Amino acid sequence: MNSKLQISQRGIEMPESPIRKLAPLADQAVERGVYIYRLNIGQPDLPTPQKALDVLKHINRTTLEYSPSQGIKSFREALVSYYDRYQIKLNPDEIIITAGGSEAVLFAFMSCLNPGDEIIIPEPAYANYMSFAISAGAVIRTVATTIDEGFCLPKVEKFEELINERTKAILICNPNNPTGYLYTQREMNQIRDLVKKYNLYLFSDEVYREFIYTGSPYISAMHLEGIQENVVLIDSVSKRYSECGTRIGALITKNEAVRKTVMKFCQARLSPPLLGQLVAEASIEGTEQYSREVYDEYVERRKCLIDNVNRIPGCYTPVPMGAFYTVAKLPVDDSEAFCAWCLSEFSYKDEKTPEGCTGETVMMAPAAGFYSEPELGKDQVRLAYVLRKDDLQRALFVLSKALESYPGRRL
Amino acid sequence: MNSKLQISQRGIEMPESPIRKLAPLADQAVERGVYIYRLNIGQPDLPTPQKALDVLKHINRTTLEYSPSQGIKSFREALVSYYDRYQIKLNPDEIIITAGGSEAVLFAFMSCLNPGDEIIIPEPAYANYMSFAISAGAVIRTVATTIDEGFCLPKVEKFEELINERTKAILICNPNNPTGYLYTQREMNQIRDLVKKYNLYLFSDEVYREFIYTGSPYISAMHLEGIQENVVLIDSVSKRYSECGTRIGALITKNEAVRKTVMKFCQARLSPPLLGQLVAEASIEGTEQYSREVYDEYVERRKCLIDNVNRIPGCYTPVPMGAFYTVAKLPVDDSEAFCAWCLSEFSYKDEKTPEGCTGETVMMAPAAGFYSEPELGKDQVRLAYVLRKDDLQRALFVLSKALESYPGRRL
Repeated sequence: MNSKLQISQRGIEMPESPIRKLAPLADQAVERGVYIYRLNIGQPDLPTPQKALDVLKHINRTTLEYSPSQGIKSFREALVSYYDRYQIKLNPDEIIITAGGSEAVLFAFMSCLNPGDEIIIPEPAYANYMSFAISAGAVIRTVATTIDEGFCLPKVEKFEELINERTKAILICNPNNPTGYLYTQREMNQIRDLVKKYNLYLFSDEVYREFIYTGSPYISAMHLEGIQENVVLIDSVSKRYSECGTRIGALITKNEAVRKTVMKFCQARLSPPLLGQLVAEASIEGTEQYSREVYDEYVERRKCLIDNVNRIPGCYTPVPMGAFYTVAKLPVDDSEAFCAWCLSEFSYKDEKTPEGCTGETVMMAPAAGFYSEPELGKDQVRLAYVLRKDDLQRALFVLSKALESYPGRRL
Repeated sequence: MNSKLQISQRGIEMPESPIRKLAPLADQAVERGVYIYRLNIGQPDLPTPQKALDVLKHINRTTLEYSPSQGIKSFREALVSYYDRYQIKLNPDEIIITAGGSEAVLFAFMSCLNPGDEIIIPEPAYANYMSFAISAGAVIRTVATTIDEGFCLPKVEKFEELINERTKAILICNPNNPTGYLYTQREMNQIRDLVKKYNLYLFSDEVYREFIYTGSPYISAMHLEGIQENVVLIDSVSKRYSECGTRIGALITKNEAVRKTVMKFCQARLSPPLLGQLVAEASIEGTEQYSREVYDEYVERRKCLIDNVNRIPGCYTPVPMGAFYTVAKLPVDDSEAFCAWCLSEFSYKDEKTPEGCTGETVMMAPAAGFYSEPELGKDQVRLAYVLRKDDLQRALFVLSKALESYPGRRL
């Protein structure tokens, strides 16, 4: 074939999601009749608020027309009052609605970074940041956080070692996916000082702010003084209202030049999803009871997960303060091989196994995909606690059984 | 301010939509009580199929969860039968659902082109292709089509003059936005031969296939023999079912390597909008009557537009064969200035002016924004016939009155 019909270099560089690699094995396990506890993805099983679903049931539009490129005004106004509850003071013009938090990250990178520009991200980190960086031609440099230190922020010096003339931004995810870590006031101040000193952008992904379990304060990047122009907040309604499929997120910044540029990218794609905005707007007010119930549910699940994981011989997870993930260390040679083995070779059966199933197993996300250097996460997995408590308990029991019989177990 | 907090070069290069520039003037005209006939955008006023809206009213999901990154399987299966009506033979795996045609264009460019690679596009062309090319770092080279030749395809030599070692693709929009032109079998064969000879990608945007008025055959890029691996079809349900706000499009190709790469970009953004897919799927079957009525309506509107424009002294539009746009020549010094003047200085009032309005005017898209060299479209505008026939008639009457009193009128 002629050399011209090649795919792009960035297409080659784009990572395949570590979870996706396991998907075919999971499909095959299902075909064999194995019941899989899916601890691998952040897809909550909880219902979307009924109030939000009712908006669809009572829709009285006759034409599903383009919405404004920036998002529906009344929705942005409702978000202003939502953020006000968190002491984030905004006006509707400072909020740009995007197709999920994903598009917000992409447009932030596209608008603020040139090809070759560098972003520093504490790792382990959400794998898709890398995909969006590749899309924008930007380069991700990572500072390692460690399970032994509970994934706390590395020392300032670790960041400064990486800063050079191409460094243009720091990205944090707080509360963190995949670790569940929540930055303290002291750590946020460190980040603020760095951002100020080197005049960097601070991209702050805070989509898990509803899920903070320790009574520790939530410090938004928007709360930090003196760096208003530097902060670009990434947000999404997906997790907080269990409406991942609506694809509604937001990019928020006080920096007018950034907003103007982001709006050009928004105008090019015409508009964010209309129906998702209607659902999201209805989710904001009058859902306090819903949010409390969801929160209480996650508190229970988190406790269940932590207790049960740390009880399995050789396993360890720090206590995550937020989000609904944790990164756990397992006594295995290679967590990617172990996760694949759980799906392809292993299944457990006793009298509690669901009727009609040939056995049970667990699906987990190998942590290697969250590190720039896969070796760093070689004995770790990310566990999402998005299952009902009794399922979660059973899942962790099945995991303990899998570890008992895994040939690559490390003693 | 430190030089580091700058926006990206591509952000600077991103064009502002020619229509958007007029938006503030339109807002001010509305505030003055002026009624505006909006001929500027491709937002049909027609209803979405009732059957599709009913899907929302009867939604029985409790969680609006992520859909598969490639799109819902049953929707892709329904699309297979839809394309079959047009003699395009596909299997569901060859269809990737995107957030509107917009995302399909972006992912096609991102997957197939490296920064610096060149795409040849006949112009005038849809302005946002430029935005997506800038996002991907690709370079658009244009071959001019002219109003005097009815916007037919330029000679093969015009393409070949531009082809060099960086040329990687040809992009066509057929039926065309903004001109309404429909490529003939002979022209499509010319494109096929070029694509074959130089082994180029052929990106073919065919979102207006339902709107062909002349009895001429619709030749899809997918119908062309011997270039199956080269063709990437861009599609969208926005126009054909009047559901622009759902943000549902598709990228379709027989080229497996391209699909695999596009899927990496799809996985990074997790999933296309769930609700839009439900609506779009319900729009495909059992809407034959709807489609006939919509078609008949556009036939009427098109006739009304063409007749009335060509009746205004000094105005000329070729007869568009498809889509719902035409590019017309006006007797003015500068159509951008004229369009702005219509919104800011002019309004017309007589006994037919809607009650409560201080006057009437028209909003049009200056054609300069559709050309690489604004000079080429200096006396042209794009008119969308997305208004009811009587409104359209009145709009064109108001346009004639505006031309009569415009100080920059060219005799």
